[in-house]
Amino acid sequence: MRSAFPRTALLSATRASRFLPAYRPAARFYSIKAEAASHSKQRPLDASRLSVEETKAPKELLKPEDLVFGKEFTDHMLAIEWTKDDGWLEPRITPYQNLSLDPATCVFHYAFECFEGMKAYKDKNGDIRLFRPDKNMARLNKSAARIALPTFEPTALVELISKLAKLDSRFIPAQRGYSLYLRPTLIGTQSTLGVGAPGSALLYVIASPVGPYYPTGFKAVSLEATNYAVRAWPGGVGDKKLGANYAPCIVPQQEAASRGFQQNLWLFGEEEYVTEVGTMNMFAAIKDKVTGQKELVTAPLDGTILEGVTRDSVLALARERLAPEGWKISERKYTMAELAEASKEGRLLEAFGAGTAAIVSPIRKISWKGELVDCGLKETEESGEIALKIKEWMEAIQYGDIEHEWSVKV
Amino acid sequence: MRSAFPRTALLSATRASRFLPAYRPAARFYSIKAEAASHSKQRPLDASRLSVEETKAPKELLKPEDLVFGKEFTDHMLAIEWTKDDGWLEPRITPYQNLSLDPATCVFHYAFECFEGMKAYKDKNGDIRLFRPDKNMARLNKSAARIALPTFEPTALVELISKLAKLDSRFIPAQRGYSLYLRPTLIGTQSTLGVGAPGSALLYVIASPVGPYYPTGFKAVSLEATNYAVRAWPGGVGDKKLGANYAPCIVPQQEAASRGFQQNLWLFGEEEYVTEVGTMNMFAAIKDKVTGQKELVTAPLDGTILEGVTRDSVLALARERLAPEGWKISERKYTMAELAEASKEGRLLEAFGAGTAAIVSPIRKISWKGELVDCGLKETEESGEIALKIKEWMEAIQYGDIEHEWSVKV
Repeated sequence: MRSAFPRTALLSATRASRFLPAYRPAARFYSIKAEAASHSKQRPLDASRLSVEETKAPKELLKPEDLVFGKEFTDHMLAIEWTKDDGWLEPRITPYQNLSLDPATCVFHYAFECFEGMKAYKDKNGDIRLFRPDKNMARLNKSAARIALPTFEPTALVELISKLAKLDSRFIPAQRGYSLYLRPTLIGTQSTLGVGAPGSALLYVIASPVGPYYPTGFKAVSLEATNYAVRAWPGGVGDKKLGANYAPCIVPQQEAASRGFQQNLWLFGEEEYVTEVGTMNMFAAIKDKVTGQKELVTAPLDGTILEGVTRDSVLALARERLAPEGWKISERKYTMAELAEASKEGRLLEAFGAGTAAIVSPIRKISWKGELVDCGLKETEESGEIALKIKEWMEAIQYGDIEHEWSVKV
Repeated sequence: MRSAFPRTALLSATRASRFLPAYRPAARFYSIKAEAASHSKQRPLDASRLSVEETKAPKELLKPEDLVFGKEFTDHMLAIEWTKDDGWLEPRITPYQNLSLDPATCVFHYAFECFEGMKAYKDKNGDIRLFRPDKNMARLNKSAARIALPTFEPTALVELISKLAKLDSRFIPAQRGYSLYLRPTLIGTQSTLGVGAPGSALLYVIASPVGPYYPTGFKAVSLEATNYAVRAWPGGVGDKKLGANYAPCIVPQQEAASRGFQQNLWLFGEEEYVTEVGTMNMFAAIKDKVTGQKELVTAPLDGTILEGVTRDSVLALARERLAPEGWKISERKYTMAELAEASKEGRLLEAFGAGTAAIVSPIRKISWKGELVDCGLKETEESGEIALKIKEWMEAIQYGDIEHEWSVKV
């Protein structure tokens, strides 16, 4: 037996089955079902209840060099339904397939949706490794709770994701720079238009083999500072990985692109604090005006900044390896004016974005109030020294060249 | 000619068709279609190209008194696909049915979704009337443009919605207070994980017969002022009807409910400006401290307030009918402290929320900083005089008791 969906304001058995015959004769796997309401308490997410249905039509692998980020997916997906009355139902790995949802489903109307981005790597022994999956699980639970979606047992989901990654491990190229991008996604599935906490949800994970962000080595990007639109604010949800934070970012990104900039840079407030680059956290390496001390600075987690796993990792590695060399590592507010002043005085050593996709993404220039703020790269350079070091440190851990607690063999 | 969305990473024809055969043997109606790429320009939304497939399994009508808001839907739905290359494809009215979407579809990940709420009424002659549909169309286009979804020809969509309302008119109860709630919804359907403007979209309309918000007459609600979470921000998207604005509102709503309040009231900034009630606009009737003049006040459209159609209608009717009686009608910032002071001095005459669902929703008390601000109702009253008048004025127009340009016979 499987998915039970007894709930309050939801599709009844009669109603659910009404959709089946006419338009959807295929397996009705992700549809909402009704079961006898015999369970009185919510069940936790239980990896031991996993069932696996392997595909009968394995996909052909693309050549690694033809991979485009998030465009091609593996043979399988993981999915777990949740209901208010029953909690987490049996986890299932099935062939990758469409979701069939009532057009009144709350994910289409009220953005009940959050997600994670994480990667599985193949090490030199052919083993599969996840990078700090506990961080992604913790963040997904925080995101879910903020929008009244259910939380889950982190270790159970890591175990299930590991099984998916192993099952589809043939999709992970062994070369350096390649990995399997994993996308845990949690959506509300209640199909009524009343605005309220969803009585049912679907947690699913899809996997996309991806190549290096910069296949031919770093390529520094130029940014346009955005001060006419605001990504996040105190008391808002900009620190959570919600779908809601993404769609509104596209137009400012397009505006920047229309003027020849690869990304936009989000400023905040009259002070024009530097917050994030497009969908990455931002770091700057600045020499102190008075003491000459080098400082690696990033915005603090004040509720307006995404709590990036790469951000956290960069900070930890910098504290461990740069601080002993005399660097100051800071999480503090800093302004665009401060960057511009440092740039003019030759004290802005480098700047880069940090995120799962690229690890680090060096920045050449920032367009701000009619000036182009130079971020310290020589014309012939595509990356500063710190960005390069950090990428190498991170990859050495991610690909298991050195043993590190962040890299979890599955 | 219309908005072009030239962009980089889009669904190719090959990719779209890959999902069809394996798991979706049924009619592939709402899937993303690839057409012979023979069109060099985008087509406008064209109501004359509508095709109608009537249901073979008409639903049984519920008793009007059993209707729950947004839970039951009519026999049919309207759907129009859009692609970057072709523009708007043929509009279709079909039996109400599930949407089948790739799990990588951008609506699940990045909240590419916006919607409208509007109603069709049955008048005393049995004719069907829409209320100010042009306002909903204009707002949907503004919402769509803000998140890089396609815009459309407003009159064409009103024509198509009218056809849906007529086809399903048997679902609209004739009694006063009943109507057909219409939910135009626009979602991004591109199925790649790169964050960018969707290359395809689906505009659909579903319809739910609804009863009066207060079946047994007004029932005043009490609110909890929320100052620990912020709904909207200048430069943000709080003035657009995006899914993104809704999911983050649930937890504050639940918090209010846990302390016995029906809704929360969104304050803004250190000044604690009054902005919105849950998902409604807010009005207060205040007597001036010095002159004694009565003022009907609501927050201005500064980018943080939803541009409510009911809000706009209330303001217009008040200017036409209350101003001549000496009322001042104001769109201006006002604070919770101002309301509390007026309340203490007996100058807060009444307060109410305004929205499509309830028209007006009278407010009894507001919990704020440990005090309960009394909004002017006697213990035996469930509505103030102005709220009652406005509801009657609005319904007389909506149900066609009087002819008015706002009420459009379909």
